[in-house]
Amino acid sequence: MPKISNRGVEMPASPIRKLVPLSDSAKARGLKVYHMNIGQPDLASPEIALKAIRNIDRKVLEYSPSMGLRSYREKLVSYYAKFNINVAADDIIITTGGSEAVLFAFLACLNPGDEIIVPEPAYANYMAFAISAGAVIRTIPSSIEEGFALPPVEKFEELINERTKGILICNPNNPTGYLYSRKEMNQIRNLVQKYDLYLFSDEVYREYIYTSSPYISACHLVGIEDNVVLIDSVSKRYSECGIRIGALITKNKELQRTINKFCQARLSPPLIGQIAAEASLEVEEDYLRDTYEEFVERRKCLIDGLNRIPGVYSPIPMGAFYTMAQLPVEDTDDFCAWCLNEFEYEGQTIFLAPGSGFYTTPGMGKNQVRIAYAINKEDIQKALVVLEKALEAYKNR
Amino acid sequence: MPKISNRGVEMPASPIRKLVPLSDSAKARGLKVYHMNIGQPDLASPEIALKAIRNIDRKVLEYSPSMGLRSYREKLVSYYAKFNINVAADDIIITTGGSEAVLFAFLACLNPGDEIIVPEPAYANYMAFAISAGAVIRTIPSSIEEGFALPPVEKFEELINERTKGILICNPNNPTGYLYSRKEMNQIRNLVQKYDLYLFSDEVYREYIYTSSPYISACHLVGIEDNVVLIDSVSKRYSECGIRIGALITKNKELQRTINKFCQARLSPPLIGQIAAEASLEVEEDYLRDTYEEFVERRKCLIDGLNRIPGVYSPIPMGAFYTMAQLPVEDTDDFCAWCLNEFEYEGQTIFLAPGSGFYTTPGMGKNQVRIAYAINKEDIQKALVVLEKALEAYKNR
Repeated sequence: MPKISNRGVEMPASPIRKLVPLSDSAKARGLKVYHMNIGQPDLASPEIALKAIRNIDRKVLEYSPSMGLRSYREKLVSYYAKFNINVAADDIIITTGGSEAVLFAFLACLNPGDEIIVPEPAYANYMAFAISAGAVIRTIPSSIEEGFALPPVEKFEELINERTKGILICNPNNPTGYLYSRKEMNQIRNLVQKYDLYLFSDEVYREYIYTSSPYISACHLVGIEDNVVLIDSVSKRYSECGIRIGALITKNKELQRTINKFCQARLSPPLIGQIAAEASLEVEEDYLRDTYEEFVERRKCLIDGLNRIPGVYSPIPMGAFYTMAQLPVEDTDDFCAWCLNEFEYEGQTIFLAPGSGFYTTPGMGKNQVRIAYAINKEDIQKALVVLEKALEAYKNR
Repeated sequence: MPKISNRGVEMPASPIRKLVPLSDSAKARGLKVYHMNIGQPDLASPEIALKAIRNIDRKVLEYSPSMGLRSYREKLVSYYAKFNINVAADDIIITTGGSEAVLFAFLACLNPGDEIIVPEPAYANYMAFAISAGAVIRTIPSSIEEGFALPPVEKFEELINERTKGILICNPNNPTGYLYSRKEMNQIRNLVQKYDLYLFSDEVYREYIYTSSPYISACHLVGIEDNVVLIDSVSKRYSECGIRIGALITKNKELQRTINKFCQARLSPPLIGQIAAEASLEVEEDYLRDTYEEFVERRKCLIDGLNRIPGVYSPIPMGAFYTMAQLPVEDTDDFCAWCLNEFEYEGQTIFLAPGSGFYTTPGMGKNQVRIAYAINKEDIQKALVVLEKALEAYKNR
């Protein structure tokens, strides 16, 4: 039998999905499982998007242009302008989810062996895409004690060498919910400019910011316009994870031409998803406000509840819909699997993502979990009870 | 400004799409352009698929499982069984188009520097995906004089070395329309077994076979079950290029587990596309038969017409809906661009894909074009007239 590639072997199983088989068998045993492992909002997608799909009047479900439907890209210009992100339609390339935007950015910008620096904990799939591209992710830990703030600039500079090609941030952050301040974004800007790095900035959670601090996009930073690659997606914004529509935004014309070649190779992004995404731009203000307010309440409910459980600590996330919380257990990989495999409380259990999957530094995050508050408040409240009972039972097992 | 990656520089522009801007400007000048450059059938997608989309009753457009909807994968088992391809649902991994299946196959099977052997002319995007994976495509020319039959086994063996990891075929073939015979498939089988290679077999055109010769799938070959990776897609089968639903099929369990990790990283294939593809499996027999008969007529119309034009020669394609034809010009890159840029006949022109883009051997295919017969017969007839006039005018320019 021929061998699997090295990157196939190195490829990590998703920390968010690797326990899915255990969850499936818990469900098969009749348990109600609270899915706080995944950022799949339970909220309805905008009716206007569903209507656009139901009213589709095409006879042929044909290829769309490789870089995405022109009409959609043009409408996105106004969407971004609302956030003071000033881009032209040609600067916006439609991708198959934010995932493909990350992959194309890495393939187009990084040679095998090139390094990018990422504050951790970080979205685990960045690592998978880096492995796909043969690139190396160097991480700098941020700490739960400091609420996962940007690590000091010196820590970045210690890692920068001739193979360093970029910095990657997620802002607001998955998994921590941290929002980088203007001061922090300027520190990043200065680093990027000083060392002529790419700045890959994943900003898919910009609609979910719960503090009065301003949202500083990488696209707001002056003087590094050709270095910035913005990653975006409609998945979280409109609860449309399944349609797989994202975007890669850059003002760097050479990079646009290069990304275009990768886009041509895979022919086109999903047509029906683009139609839904384009319609979603016309969603009534109420939808976005209601969604936002729902997350505000869920956040309060979850974070207050977590911090009331003995031994549990969660900083207050400023954005997105996750928190990295610390649990009074030594190994959350074991604890999370145990919750699905062996525990139940009144016919219920809880599915959390073990923290270790969001770190590359060995041993980090062993007592942390990522908790998504993408399920409804009532379920969050029940899940908190289940978590408290699970922690007690686990201690006494 | 930071540098583009080497693979970004090496990445070829798509030979099928690179002239699109010229075509767009021809259209802007008011010309009717016959699009024979691209395998986008003009045929309606099945009504049952469109209905499934229009009747979507979900409130949340959520992630599907990483490997695809279970119900769809289970139904595909019966679809493949009709072709005597005996696979289980777990052997079928749903991908974002056949494109993603090729990319994942290369990423999971090939290390940077590993080589795969591909008979050429070949679908140009294989090269793009190989470059993405850092793999090397070694080509063996097949010749128009022999109707693009499989090159002799010795030619393969001349190229095989310690870096050779696989053979890739497309059967029925894009761009030539060739269908490998049982004898040729057995030759491939023996090579694969002797050198323990992967066999990547792109069989997306299996519905379109116009001879009485049997369709021999790579999955029919005995003794190399763990070596075979079948690439599939619904794009051409149901005229659903835009929904981006493909599949990767392998019985190799280790490879399944590895591909699954790549699938998890990009979260899920498009949901709505899967719903449409699943519904398409229930399409009435009439649809497939009508589509088939339509292509039979188009093929006859195109090939007879081509061979009537002085200096033009096309072998008879046995499958798919393309032919590689030879034109009486020295450089079809120049001729195809000229048709869009400078030529018109009664307000019409023709868009063909230059042959050189389907070869890696320098100088090959310079007098060939790939012509897709995915447009209607009446347009094919008009396009043939335009082609004949264009060849005359080009000669006398």
